Amino acid sequence: MTRFLSKIHAGMDPYVPGEQPQNRKYTKLNTNENPYPPSPSVIAAISAAEAGRLNLYCDPNCTALNQAIALTHGVADNQVITGNGSDELLAFAFMAYCMGKKAVFPDISYGFYPVFARLFGVEYREIPLREDFSIDPSDYYKAGGTIFLANPNAPTGRALAKAQIAWIAANNPGDLLVVDEAYVDFGGESALGLIGEYDNILVVRTFSKSRSLAGLRVGYAVSTPEIIAELNGMKFSFNPYNVDRLAILAGAASVLDKSYFEARTQSIVSTREDFSQRLKEQGYDVLPSRANFVFARHPKLTGKALYQGLKENGVLVRWFDKDRIREFVRITIGTPEQMEDYFAAAAAAERAQP
Amino acid sequence: MTRFLSKIHAGMDPYVPGEQPQNRKYTKLNTNENPYPPSPSVIAAISAAEAGRLNLYCDPNCTALNQAIALTHGVADNQVITGNGSDELLAFAFMAYCMGKKAVFPDISYGFYPVFARLFGVEYREIPLREDFSIDPSDYYKAGGTIFLANPNAPTGRALAKAQIAWIAANNPGDLLVVDEAYVDFGGESALGLIGEYDNILVVRTFSKSRSLAGLRVGYAVSTPEIIAELNGMKFSFNPYNVDRLAILAGAASVLDKSYFEARTQSIVSTREDFSQRLKEQGYDVLPSRANFVFARHPKLTGKALYQGLKENGVLVRWFDKDRIREFVRITIGTPEQMEDYFAAAAAAERAQP
Repeated sequence: MTRFLSKIHAGMDPYVPGEQPQNRKYTKLNTNENPYPPSPSVIAAISAAEAGRLNLYCDPNCTALNQAIALTHGVADNQVITGNGSDELLAFAFMAYCMGKKAVFPDISYGFYPVFARLFGVEYREIPLREDFSIDPSDYYKAGGTIFLANPNAPTGRALAKAQIAWIAANNPGDLLVVDEAYVDFGGESALGLIGEYDNILVVRTFSKSRSLAGLRVGYAVSTPEIIAELNGMKFSFNPYNVDRLAILAGAASVLDKSYFEARTQSIVSTREDFSQRLKEQGYDVLPSRANFVFARHPKLTGKALYQGLKENGVLVRWFDKDRIREFVRITIGTPEQMEDYFAAAAAAERAQP
Repeated sequence: MTRFLSKIHAGMDPYVPGEQPQNRKYTKLNTNENPYPPSPSVIAAISAAEAGRLNLYCDPNCTALNQAIALTHGVADNQVITGNGSDELLAFAFMAYCMGKKAVFPDISYGFYPVFARLFGVEYREIPLREDFSIDPSDYYKAGGTIFLANPNAPTGRALAKAQIAWIAANNPGDLLVVDEAYVDFGGESALGLIGEYDNILVVRTFSKSRSLAGLRVGYAVSTPEIIAELNGMKFSFNPYNVDRLAILAGAASVLDKSYFEARTQSIVSTREDFSQRLKEQGYDVLPSRANFVFARHPKLTGKALYQGLKENGVLVRWFDKDRIREFVRITIGTPEQMEDYFAAAAAAERAQP
């Protein structure tokens, strides 16, 4: 630690993204990427002609992209903000709504929430999931701080129903409820329809999963015009030109190609159901997933041994060295061929065990 | 203000970027964009093939881009961090090195510094420029906080010599000196060579000006490995995938095309000198500029009247409604043809005055 660093960051413990090894080609089932390329209209939008205009700034208001998103969800343009990935919007939400207050989230959820809290010196309370890794809404009755819920949750894949989200919003009228819907397109119930009814819901979404655009960095949030204006206040105090010209164009093209999106999402859901079923047949303990991954426990191997055995056999999954979930691995749903790679690597890992 | 917003943001006063009107085509000399397109190798790097891989996350360590930058400047890879524009890196520097401390910068400089300070609740001291709008290094003797100096300064265009930066670093051994070199390629002296000698210098740069990539959002910072590690701590606590796949690729291509960069930069410097000379011949008061803009006062029109008259005649410049500089406008150096547009519009504005 240099003598210049602010004391608040003394215990800094940054987020660790899923590994991205450069030295060997793996079947990557560890970072919940979409196995399919983005829509052809996205690829067309990133044309050489547009690259030739990159000397000009992007639109700091992301007008074209916000309008496309607003149109899709049937909300007003001023109810949408786009960011450099949904992580940036979550960071803005922590800055706006947690500094000097409290944050509340499940003990097992997106690992970035406690990182944001520590970065901004925010006191936080982690509420344990139930034994079956589901969220009990009643645990969030008057939670006493800004609530962050991933729905479906990560890394479990379990989802709350829309009515349960509504109950939590209704029972925390003085606090904001942030619903992180990164995975909702794969089978969750969205809270978007609750925004007209409750004024304390902020829905955050990403183009990194169902939109096949993890490498482009686009996320968005939807809420009341007042909350979106405050998040824009954060953005224009931090990084006004946060979404680049190509991301604005390609993001808008992606949103408008509804049929491609639906077909690919349906493929992944179908692969997930087949994969989960086969895991269960092999004796795995598999949580019911509404996301593009499954969280599963091998009948014999420890989580660590399975993770390491898979890696040795060319397949990357995510393992969390954390209480309660140490025996599980999170497996991203890839193409059907990639899931065959999984079973082959798992079989090799099993054979290698004493 | 909603009941959810943190009290710290009650007096929020976000940065206002230069106007980007969509309703009419202007000669845009208001946001210091480069008038020339990026290098052909940049355009080639943004190929359809790469767009087809956007379903995969970008490299959170920006390895290829950091290496290209490090190679160019003759520093180690771990002395470089890249960001989603230099604004994001300045924000990380405020988070890391100012929270709970003080910030110090000139009274007339990049308008974002006080915005960052207010966002993070940082107390700041503004040191007045001299009467001639130059920075007096002796004003920064034991300045008592993290120092932010744009060099060349904006919107004045005036520059400090490398030896003056060294003097300031030497006389603030307990504090970090952030040198914002957004415009240095147009004639300033860089502080990069001082980083080996002083351990309290952080140089921040952008691809938005001399690299013709304002629309792609790439900036970088160079310092000691220890300071870069701390800034990475901020990045990995805020937005780990902050630079997208296309920006990493295209940014690296840009850095490696040295001859294109040098030729275009030289064109702009040469246009600036011609333009400044002609303004002086017309009676303007023109500050000596080392940047890709000039700061000038019309012999008869007020700053506001000149700005408005130019806009009515299709040319946008930047006018700051701020004490000491209210009679000036900041004019970006475009192509020689665009500077002719300036003179035509200014002449029309003069004729329209009573």
